[in-house]
Amino acid sequence: MSSTLTRRQLVGAGAAGAALLATGAVPARAARSRTRRADVCVIGAGLSGLTAARALVAADRTVVVLEARDRVGGRTLNASLGGGRVAELGGEFAGPTQDRILALARAVGVKTFATYNAGSNVQVAAGVRSLYAAVPGIPTDPEVLAGLATVLKLDALAKEAGVVAPWKAKKAREWDRMTLGDWVDAEIPSVRARAIVTAAAEAIWGADPSDLSLLYALQYIAAAGDAKHAGGFLRLINTAGGAQEQRFVGGSQLISERVADRLGKRVVLRAPVRTIAQADDGVSVLADTISVHARQVIVAVPPALAARIAFAPKLPKGKAALLKGFEGGTMAKVEAVYPRPFWRDAGLSGQGVADVGPANTTFDNSPPDGSLGVLLGFVGGSSYRRWATLPAEQRRAQVLASFAAFVGDEARSPTEYVERNWAEERWSRGCPVAHTPPGLLTRYGQWLRRPVGRVHFAGSETSDYWIGYMDGAVRAGQRAAREVVAAQH
Amino acid sequence: MSSTLTRRQLVGAGAAGAALLATGAVPARAARSRTRRADVCVIGAGLSGLTAARALVAADRTVVVLEARDRVGGRTLNASLGGGRVAELGGEFAGPTQDRILALARAVGVKTFATYNAGSNVQVAAGVRSLYAAVPGIPTDPEVLAGLATVLKLDALAKEAGVVAPWKAKKAREWDRMTLGDWVDAEIPSVRARAIVTAAAEAIWGADPSDLSLLYALQYIAAAGDAKHAGGFLRLINTAGGAQEQRFVGGSQLISERVADRLGKRVVLRAPVRTIAQADDGVSVLADTISVHARQVIVAVPPALAARIAFAPKLPKGKAALLKGFEGGTMAKVEAVYPRPFWRDAGLSGQGVADVGPANTTFDNSPPDGSLGVLLGFVGGSSYRRWATLPAEQRRAQVLASFAAFVGDEARSPTEYVERNWAEERWSRGCPVAHTPPGLLTRYGQWLRRPVGRVHFAGSETSDYWIGYMDGAVRAGQRAAREVVAAQH
Repeated sequence: MSSTLTRRQLVGAGAAGAALLATGAVPARAARSRTRRADVCVIGAGLSGLTAARALVAADRTVVVLEARDRVGGRTLNASLGGGRVAELGGEFAGPTQDRILALARAVGVKTFATYNAGSNVQVAAGVRSLYAAVPGIPTDPEVLAGLATVLKLDALAKEAGVVAPWKAKKAREWDRMTLGDWVDAEIPSVRARAIVTAAAEAIWGADPSDLSLLYALQYIAAAGDAKHAGGFLRLINTAGGAQEQRFVGGSQLISERVADRLGKRVVLRAPVRTIAQADDGVSVLADTISVHARQVIVAVPPALAARIAFAPKLPKGKAALLKGFEGGTMAKVEAVYPRPFWRDAGLSGQGVADVGPANTTFDNSPPDGSLGVLLGFVGGSSYRRWATLPAEQRRAQVLASFAAFVGDEARSPTEYVERNWAEERWSRGCPVAHTPPGLLTRYGQWLRRPVGRVHFAGSETSDYWIGYMDGAVRAGQRAAREVVAAQH
Repeated sequence: MSSTLTRRQLVGAGAAGAALLATGAVPARAARSRTRRADVCVIGAGLSGLTAARALVAADRTVVVLEARDRVGGRTLNASLGGGRVAELGGEFAGPTQDRILALARAVGVKTFATYNAGSNVQVAAGVRSLYAAVPGIPTDPEVLAGLATVLKLDALAKEAGVVAPWKAKKAREWDRMTLGDWVDAEIPSVRARAIVTAAAEAIWGADPSDLSLLYALQYIAAAGDAKHAGGFLRLINTAGGAQEQRFVGGSQLISERVADRLGKRVVLRAPVRTIAQADDGVSVLADTISVHARQVIVAVPPALAARIAFAPKLPKGKAALLKGFEGGTMAKVEAVYPRPFWRDAGLSGQGVADVGPANTTFDNSPPDGSLGVLLGFVGGSSYRRWATLPAEQRRAQVLASFAAFVGDEARSPTEYVERNWAEERWSRGCPVAHTPPGLLTRYGQWLRRPVGRVHFAGSETSDYWIGYMDGAVRAGQRAAREVVAAQH
């Protein structure tokens, strides 16, 4: 029992609680030396920073990775279910065109398995519960499907926006002046369809359509692909053929742990960086517990955390404004554990979407062998903001009511119940990704990936493809490492 | 070479040519005795008749199956590609909720494999070629997807119509007065979307929307499911999660051949039935080469063939009118063979849909190991009627031009090219299924499955679920066998 989730361990766990949750426990790597020298200092031991460090070591660079938390993995996090089984409380899915995260997982011996995706998905809208096939996973409610057809018009606009410099697109100003919500309100007459689009947005961005610059949404859709496959909205929302198609055996955090293990003492935990001071001959990075002098730095943390680091000299105004202007997604991942994935017996996939929250999208998050049932829900955007203020008992009751609406009353009696409120995580400040409100990208987007002197920027938000996903984190880390290697030639 | 397809063997082969094409050649079972007695005489050794016979033998009935052709399998037909590989020229796909055909295949040791479904599907519409992911296989052209969303409104109407007695539905008369085309024209403004819906209908029914009673289309959609899963249009058109998801190793006809092998001398080939004469104590079935005296008869042939049998006494007027009123689908299956499935290298699934024919829908029909490339196209409905009148060389050129539009110019140079014009098959008179024009179902639908004295009716057209599919053939055969067993108690 002691190795299974308990409410005490998990509910509302902050940075400290996170340590309790980490499995495959990463050995503490507190530095003995208070000062280190390296070719490169990487800030953040999430997937992006670890990937950058790995690439730099492969290029024969000396590296120190500074991580604020006492664990690696950033916005990925495994929780033990006992018996070696885990459920992820952070990013966990992968799919077609996400070749970089899949290749990294393979390289460190982490296998994938198919997200449970058989039987029927459930839609709850306007008080009516209806079923549609998990494969292909397309809602068959004509009103909602017509709304989806309208949303897919964004794919063509996304292609115009592109992944490299959407702020330079011909219509960039027009698109950045409005929100995705403005566009949806103008284009989709059905209240029901708009509510389902909102639920999807809350799961994708931890934000409502009315929070997001349309230009940013277009960039994000364009990014849902790779150099050979144009991005598309369907790839964001689909399980079969989409970004939720696969999961990682042992949990997604295992990838970061394995990479960190190979980096060994290069990774320093419990080292929150406060200051980055650039001089002609190098950069000094001052953390609470350690100082690193390096030739180059890669900042591989979310924008809100980068904005909190003191830079000397100060960052250019545009760069600072961009980092500060990004808004972290507000999202909790909620999970309930049952003796069995009982919904499977009823022909349900465990996937659902609803026009009311709090948990308005769900997935079957059971371990590969189905020996336990885990149902996961996303509570994002305005659904999160309403729900997060409630007392714990009410939050739980509302989530389980959401689950019950999807898969039946048995959902009301889990053996365990877990919340992970990523918006409250001091060292993430939002999940799954930070977005830009109207006006920011056209004004400051040019700074997104631009290095400032010896300081380079990674993190999933700076990727070309798969922004906001583990794959984007890997891509951005690889790109920043390439920049640094080029700079050091 | 002698075992591979040649144009001489295959192009426009009629009933006689069919024999050349059958692989796993069924031993001739010409009866030595000119008269036989049996508990049951089954007419037609397609999947429906063979299934009925199999069920009756299991229930300890003596059975004779009379088949007009010199092969079994009805609207399924294997063609040899050499090296033990086959391509089907008739019905070949199966998918979720088609449990009966899948169970029958398992029972006779025929395995399934997944239809090739990776990479991108192609849409060609208004002269523009665009790609969309094979999984989920949903067109992302917003105009076409909006059209699909509209078509899916039919799912709800189909539920009202039901599978048992759609002619009794509240709105049956309204729906049977109009065609599916009338409904589509009224509901879908986009010319492009209507053309894609037409292409889908031509592949599903071998008919245009304007040929089909809306009520019939609703019954057919309702039938695309099972007792636990409501029917739906998506299940008709999808590969992943739909009716095209799986294929049979060794070719679909192998199932019939295996069942026939077990029935042994009970199956009599080259025995076209001309007359069914009922008396108080039994039924006499008179075929060209044999007479059978039985206690009960199961007619397991398409309606157009049943209508050509002389009944004594005459069939009730309603029954005769129904059989005569059914219209066989006009469809050819066209296939081109290449040294390799070259489209796969280009990231294409081989699946395409176009707003112009003749081959306006395609699939990858390669053998499981991909050692040869086979592209199949459906030429149905009005596309068929225009195309079928052309000289052979023009038919071939037009089909290969369709293929090239989907997968590139390499498609213009196949090593083999095959057509199977099912509408011209004397012992099928249409493919894949017969449909009803407006007015027929409400007037005569009550006769669809009703026995006439000692004569019972099977065939896929009489099934409750999966009308027009191999699964429906099996279901109808099982139902007719149950009726007969009950009648003989």
